[in-house]
Amino acid sequence: MKPDHSPSEVNRRVAIASMALLPALSGALLSTSVQAQATSDAPLASWNDGPAKQAILDFVRSTTDQASTKFVKPEDRIAAFDQDGTLWVEHPIYSQVVYCLDRVPAVVEKDPKLKNVEPFKTVLSGNREAIAKLSLRDLEKILFATLTGMSVDDFEAEAKKWLTNAKDARWKRPYTDLIYQPMLEVMQYLRSNGFKTYIVTGGGQDFVRVYSNQVYGIPVEQVVGTAAGTKFGYRKDGTPFLTKEPKLLLNDDKAGKPEGIHLMIGRRPHAAFGNSGGDREMLEYTGAGDGARLMMLVLHDDGQREYAYGPAQGLPDSKVGTFSQPLYDEAKKKSWTVISMKSDWKRIFAFEEKA
Amino acid sequence: MKPDHSPSEVNRRVAIASMALLPALSGALLSTSVQAQATSDAPLASWNDGPAKQAILDFVRSTTDQASTKFVKPEDRIAAFDQDGTLWVEHPIYSQVVYCLDRVPAVVEKDPKLKNVEPFKTVLSGNREAIAKLSLRDLEKILFATLTGMSVDDFEAEAKKWLTNAKDARWKRPYTDLIYQPMLEVMQYLRSNGFKTYIVTGGGQDFVRVYSNQVYGIPVEQVVGTAAGTKFGYRKDGTPFLTKEPKLLLNDDKAGKPEGIHLMIGRRPHAAFGNSGGDREMLEYTGAGDGARLMMLVLHDDGQREYAYGPAQGLPDSKVGTFSQPLYDEAKKKSWTVISMKSDWKRIFAFEEKA
Repeated sequence: MKPDHSPSEVNRRVAIASMALLPALSGALLSTSVQAQATSDAPLASWNDGPAKQAILDFVRSTTDQASTKFVKPEDRIAAFDQDGTLWVEHPIYSQVVYCLDRVPAVVEKDPKLKNVEPFKTVLSGNREAIAKLSLRDLEKILFATLTGMSVDDFEAEAKKWLTNAKDARWKRPYTDLIYQPMLEVMQYLRSNGFKTYIVTGGGQDFVRVYSNQVYGIPVEQVVGTAAGTKFGYRKDGTPFLTKEPKLLLNDDKAGKPEGIHLMIGRRPHAAFGNSGGDREMLEYTGAGDGARLMMLVLHDDGQREYAYGPAQGLPDSKVGTFSQPLYDEAKKKSWTVISMKSDWKRIFAFEEKA
Repeated sequence: MKPDHSPSEVNRRVAIASMALLPALSGALLSTSVQAQATSDAPLASWNDGPAKQAILDFVRSTTDQASTKFVKPEDRIAAFDQDGTLWVEHPIYSQVVYCLDRVPAVVEKDPKLKNVEPFKTVLSGNREAIAKLSLRDLEKILFATLTGMSVDDFEAEAKKWLTNAKDARWKRPYTDLIYQPMLEVMQYLRSNGFKTYIVTGGGQDFVRVYSNQVYGIPVEQVVGTAAGTKFGYRKDGTPFLTKEPKLLLNDDKAGKPEGIHLMIGRRPHAAFGNSGGDREMLEYTGAGDGARLMMLVLHDDGQREYAYGPAQGLPDSKVGTFSQPLYDEAKKKSWTVISMKSDWKRIFAFEEKA
């Protein structure tokens, strides 16, 4: 019953915890025109018929039908979604880590003595192989240096600018285009049935909040993520402002997910979606409640349209989200639904041709 | 511009921080039939005409009229309310502290060796004078002992039971009856105009969540309060559960209020209501935003119908919420609105005869 503590899981957790120092913002929207709307006429239009689609339809029917013994009052309808690997592409590297690496030149410009100090020197070299080999301790240094010590407003402006301009290497598109269309449809379908949808991510709460409303239709207060503390202070003219502190407040991964859910939402979700060992405890916690519950795991088994990784089903392991064999076994045992990207999804991204 | 750090302010903050260790719950409602509904036909029916009522009406008109330059989009309409002394009675002692004192016998029954150990011995003696003299350190010990080390579900059940049975000494009514009817009307009026209402309290987040929905019509996820961490674990049968830990996560008082707002809401409120130095930073932060902003402070100047305390206007000081002269001066300077309970409110409690 205990979570596995394989080195890759632990490393992932540490990496995410460090990443978490992503500062704050006040909720404005991106100016890019990424679509938060699902384009469906029928619900779940991008889903193939099959057990995964059926599980979603059955769950919604039984929780919203007043005649059902599993009816859930509208105010109790909470659904939680992991982000990286569940709502958008996480492979081969979390977008937020790319953001931090991209921020290094600006940090060095402000503090030129870092130029010849590791790990900044390596990042500045642009040597991708060397960068990929940076230790977790080095990564932490980069995250702290690029993500703290600025006002929450400055962070928001910087992150927004980056998200507008940066492009993924494979698809040559903004990272916010790499959202899974079928998952947008699930979120919209749940919302149209009275569910409040939350993102519960190991990534930085404030980073995700920069685009959550525009991209997912999820307001900033419904983003629960790894969070650093802020510090209230006054500018010289007396204006109050908040500064992002290098102090971890909530490590919203693995056991931290139900803990974060309790802190930020205050009640147990009825549905939870994830894709890795980082989501295990959230799904267990969700599943331990009474009545109708829906637990789903996205399996990355489509190397052609996206990526194929994770030891479950004999796929190669990944540095990011680990869908391990024990997790797969637990899913089967507890009747969690595994979503095959390859066979359950007609299309993966909104920018693909309609199937 | 710096907040005052008078001993009473500091003590209050420490007391509230300690109090914060109030554990968790999963959002069920109280079974008592306290009314969350304002009983008004017209908005703000329990308010006398005057500058305070007018400020609320003006604010709502200008933020909801699309033709107004101060129009605020519905999704950005956030209003934050302090609780103790702003939404319900805080004098002469916070209800949550009474809860903790009332829990001491149960704690001693579980751990009998505490019977002869201070401060538990004093609390068990029932000597009110001696109890009132307990030091902050003693109070902290009581709070830790009564509020941590249990599951969030057990905490919720205990707190709910207490809230149903305990009665305030003066009015002989449940504490949840001691809500200010005019403030319920403000919350309802704001909500009916598209505002999302939050409680932002120095008190325990999980304690307030036990009754927030039933009493204020505010769902648990819209309660931001001082919060302790929880720890995820498994029972022997494998069921996951959360335990309240004696670890302060968020001290949601004074500077901690804007910090808590950033963490939990992620954006700046357009309206904020308070009554003491603990709310100063929240009002400053709210007021520092663009466009229409409403900052209000409740002045306890009605010794007959409620209590009169606070050095502003020469009233006696109180151990609880301190409305100091510097705060009063800042309010005047920044055009925050001071609400006189005596002259602005037709009635204070729902159980009073209608005016």
